[in-house]
Amino acid sequence: MSHVDFYFEFASPYAYFSSRQLPALCDRIGIRVDWKPILLGPIFRRTGARPLLTDGRRGEYAKRDCRRWALMHGIPYREPDRFPLYSLPAARGALVLEGHPQREAYVHAVFRAYWVDGRNVGEPEVLGEVAAGLGLDRHEFLTAIEQGEVKERLKQETEAAWTRGVFGAPTFFYRDEMLWGNDRLPMLERLIQEDRARPA
Amino acid sequence: MSHVDFYFEFASPYAYFSSRQLPALCDRIGIRVDWKPILLGPIFRRTGARPLLTDGRRGEYAKRDCRRWALMHGIPYREPDRFPLYSLPAARGALVLEGHPQREAYVHAVFRAYWVDGRNVGEPEVLGEVAAGLGLDRHEFLTAIEQGEVKERLKQETEAAWTRGVFGAPTFFYRDEMLWGNDRLPMLERLIQEDRARPA
Repeated sequence: MSHVDFYFEFASPYAYFSSRQLPALCDRIGIRVDWKPILLGPIFRRTGARPLLTDGRRGEYAKRDCRRWALMHGIPYREPDRFPLYSLPAARGALVLEGHPQREAYVHAVFRAYWVDGRNVGEPEVLGEVAAGLGLDRHEFLTAIEQGEVKERLKQETEAAWTRGVFGAPTFFYRDEMLWGNDRLPMLERLIQEDRARPA
Repeated sequence: MSHVDFYFEFASPYAYFSSRQLPALCDRIGIRVDWKPILLGPIFRRTGARPLLTDGRRGEYAKRDCRRWALMHGIPYREPDRFPLYSLPAARGALVLEGHPQREAYVHAVFRAYWVDGRNVGEPEVLGEVAAGLGLDRHEFLTAIEQGEVKERLKQETEAAWTRGVFGAPTFFYRDEMLWGNDRLPMLERLIQEDRARPA
């Protein structure tokens, strides 16, 4: 089964929207999602980009755009009180759970905790509660995300994303085609369908 | 008749795409387009934004995105050899022609000359040819765009756009709703339709 690589950052509202819209899209066309947690911090330090929601009038605009997008697509969304989210522990958690049956549920639960319920999942205590809510062992989970190996792995994943061309999130790869931005999901779908319609 | 204010910059490929897609959208729903030429230069100097197509990997990505967008929407497009376009004289021309029956044709002709035919409409000679191709008097047109009043007017229009919240192009206003980016046209259409469906 072919797949779409979905590079996401928990602190990005548009990545949150994609996390809600991409799985249905991929189900519809019979393609797998590979969930790829990364951190935008190290990437933005290289490009000089600023975190969107705190970026002056572009940020104010994005907040309005997010509210409209959520409303129009029926996605639950409430603007959090604090930006940006310290997403490091949550991203490590998504790596720790690779291969675990609850992994996708974890990603959705973290996104929801922050972008709907306004909970600060940057705090280990809160993140532990989210994990426990999925039936995971809170202590085991919180210990696992502090392991040096996991910390190193997230750096490597972010580095690999950078090497591949990623400069923001959400970013999607289908084969060699990179698409950036939640609003490129229709284009992603069309690219995949056109690729499949081509004679082998 | 209600209207959409369309703030455009000839140097922006996404503004070009919108210039091709917005009129049909507005015809469909019976709303007028108000064409608003501005310059992004003075706006970017304030926000610190960089011209898109020359902005490192974001620029390289945008070039790819533009080619895909054009292909998928059947819009003629050829990446120009030189970026960014010196759009000042062309923008002044769009102001000079306000109220003229050929004004919209001029905007389309300038966009096409640069984004399809790769002609440097930053040069008065080339711009004069574009104007002449529409039946305008080349000498009169080139003299008009050099008038102090027109130069001042473009500064004021750009300043007014900034005051209204514009930080990039294309930007659309429907009543107090600001939308930024060619990819927000479907949202614009939906906002207008929802607004009209509301009881007065």
